[in-house]
Amino acid sequence: MATIRDVAKKAGVSVATVSRALNDKGYIHEDTRKLVEKAIQELNYKPNEVARSLYKKKSRLIGLLLPDIRNPFFPELARGVEDEMQEHGLRLIIGNADEKPKKEIDYIDTFKQNNVIGIISATNQTETSHYENLDFPVVFLDRTANEHPSVYADGLAGGKIAAQEMIKRGSKRITLLRGPIELRTAQDRFKGAINEICNYNVNFNVMTTASFTFDDAEKIAKELFEKFPETDGVIASNDLGAAAILHEALRRGISVPDELQIIGYDDIPLSSLLYPALSTIRQPAYDMGREAAKLLIQIIDDEKLEHKNIQLPVTFIERQTTRKVEENG
Amino acid sequence: MATIRDVAKKAGVSVATVSRALNDKGYIHEDTRKLVEKAIQELNYKPNEVARSLYKKKSRLIGLLLPDIRNPFFPELARGVEDEMQEHGLRLIIGNADEKPKKEIDYIDTFKQNNVIGIISATNQTETSHYENLDFPVVFLDRTANEHPSVYADGLAGGKIAAQEMIKRGSKRITLLRGPIELRTAQDRFKGAINEICNYNVNFNVMTTASFTFDDAEKIAKELFEKFPETDGVIASNDLGAAAILHEALRRGISVPDELQIIGYDDIPLSSLLYPALSTIRQPAYDMGREAAKLLIQIIDDEKLEHKNIQLPVTFIERQTTRKVEENG
Repeated sequence: MATIRDVAKKAGVSVATVSRALNDKGYIHEDTRKLVEKAIQELNYKPNEVARSLYKKKSRLIGLLLPDIRNPFFPELARGVEDEMQEHGLRLIIGNADEKPKKEIDYIDTFKQNNVIGIISATNQTETSHYENLDFPVVFLDRTANEHPSVYADGLAGGKIAAQEMIKRGSKRITLLRGPIELRTAQDRFKGAINEICNYNVNFNVMTTASFTFDDAEKIAKELFEKFPETDGVIASNDLGAAAILHEALRRGISVPDELQIIGYDDIPLSSLLYPALSTIRQPAYDMGREAAKLLIQIIDDEKLEHKNIQLPVTFIERQTTRKVEENG
Repeated sequence: MATIRDVAKKAGVSVATVSRALNDKGYIHEDTRKLVEKAIQELNYKPNEVARSLYKKKSRLIGLLLPDIRNPFFPELARGVEDEMQEHGLRLIIGNADEKPKKEIDYIDTFKQNNVIGIISATNQTETSHYENLDFPVVFLDRTANEHPSVYADGLAGGKIAAQEMIKRGSKRITLLRGPIELRTAQDRFKGAINEICNYNVNFNVMTTASFTFDDAEKIAKELFEKFPETDGVIASNDLGAAAILHEALRRGISVPDELQIIGYDDIPLSSLLYPALSTIRQPAYDMGREAAKLLIQIIDDEKLEHKNIQLPVTFIERQTTRKVEENG
C-alpha cells in the first residue's frame, strides 16, 4: 500500500505539502496541488483515516448503538441508517449493547476514542447521563431522552389503532401486554391502547413484560393462558411477544383468529412468515433509520433544524391473526 | 475532558514522559511512573485511542463483517464474537455487507483506515482477493476461503443427519433446497444430504435458492408446491427458508408433519416460536463466534496454532415439523 511518503516522492514535494493538500489547510500552489493529486491517483493512495482524523479532528465515522441485535426490529433500523449514511459518504460502526448498561457505556467510549462525529442510539436504558457533554451530536432512535433530538414512531396512535381494530372485530376479553416500564415508546403504545379500550364496554387484563427478549416472550406467553384463560384478544407489546403468544395458543388447541385474535407491534420481516400470518401495527423501521441519519447529518453540518423530534406514523397491517370485520357485523 | 497536557502538568513531567508511561515504551523512572498514574487517576484521563493507535500502530479494535444482519443467524454469531472479545478487552465494530460486494469492500476499507488489529468475516462473496495482503490477520466465520484460518460447522454431517432423520420418519418424495452455489458451507450441507439420500430408495427433487434472504425464501416456497406437489418432505437450506415452506404448506391446508415433514438448518431463536415448532439442524452459532474470536486473538498474539481450521459439530433438534420415529415403524 502506498504511503504519504511515496506520494511526496512521486510528486517531488515534501510530506508536509502532501498533508496540506490532503487536509485543505494552509497555502499550496495550484500546480503543486495538481502534482500531488496526480501522484495520489497513480499510486492509488488512501490516506489513513486515523492520521487524518487526528489532524483534522474529524473522521467520517458514525456510531450506531443497538440494544439487542437478536430482535429483528433493530437490524431493520440499522439498514435504514446505513443506507442514508453511505449515500453521504459516511461510515457506520455498529455496537450491540445486549440490553446491558455496562456494554452501552463501553461502546460510547469506543465511539469517542475512535473520533466518531456523531452517535445514533436506540438504547433502552433510562440512565442517559453518559450522553451528556459529548463533543459530538447524539440522535436517539426509537427512543426519546430529555432534550436530545430523536426519531420515533407514533406509539399513542399505534396502541389506539390496535385497540380499535381488535374491538371492531369482536374481542370482549382483551389481555394487554405492557412492554418494559422504562421505555417511553413501549409505554406510549400501551397508553394508547388502554385509553381506547376504556371507551368501550369490554373487559381487559394487563400483563407486564420486563424486556423484549425471546426468553421473556416465551415465559409471558405461558403465564398468560394460565392467568387469563378467558382471553379472546391479545394486544402484544411487540411482534416477538405476539409470536410467542400465537405459538402457545396453537399449542393449546386455541383457534386463531376464531377464538383468539392477536395483534403484534413492529412488523418485523418474520411476521408474514408466521402461520397464521401476524396482524400487527407497522413501525416504519427502515424509514426511521433513514430519518435519524438525515437528522444527525443536518446537525453535523450545522444546518438549521426544522424539527428536532420527528415522529413517524404507524399503520395497521391486517393479516390472519385477526378476523375480517364483516364477520362480526 | 482531561488531555495528556493536563496529566503532564499535574504530574510535573513532560508530555513525552506521559506518553512513554502510557505506551510502555522507553525508560521511565518508577517514581515518575507513579506520579503519572496518580495524575491519570485523579483527572480521570482516558487516552485517545486514535492518538494511541497512531503512536503504537495498534488499536484495540476488531472488525466483524456480517453478510446480512436481517438473517437472525448472524446476530447470534456476532454475540459470540463480541462476548469473547470483551473478555479480552477488545472492542468490536460491526459492518453489515447486506450481501453486496461493494459494501463489503467499503467496510474492509473502513476497518483498515481505523487501524483494526484483525477482521472476522462471515462474507458470502466468492471473490475474496480483497482479504489478501492486509496488514492484519483475517479469520473467516461460517465460511472458508483459500488458506485463511476459519471456523465453521460440519455441513456434510448436517446434511447427512437431516436426510437420515427425514427418511427414518417415512418421507419418500423429498425436495431438497440447495443454498447459494457460491457458498461452500451451503453446498456442504446439500452434498451431505444428497449423498445420504442416494443410499435409499426414495425419490427426490432439487430446488436452488439464489440467496438466503426473506424475499427469495417466500418465492421458493410458492414455487415448490407448484412444481413438486407430491413432496412429502423438505430439507431446507436454512431456517428462514424452512419457515417460508411451513407457512406456505399450512396456507395450502397441508398437514405438518403428517403429510409433509420439514427440517430446517441453523436453529435461529425464532424456530421454536414457529407453530408447529421447527425441527432443524442446529449450528452452534454463538460458540462459532466465540471460537472465531479465540482463533483471531491467538493469531494476533502470535501464539502457535493447534488448528487453523476449526469445525464444530451440528445436532438434530427434534421439534414438531417431523414425525415421531415410532409412528413409522
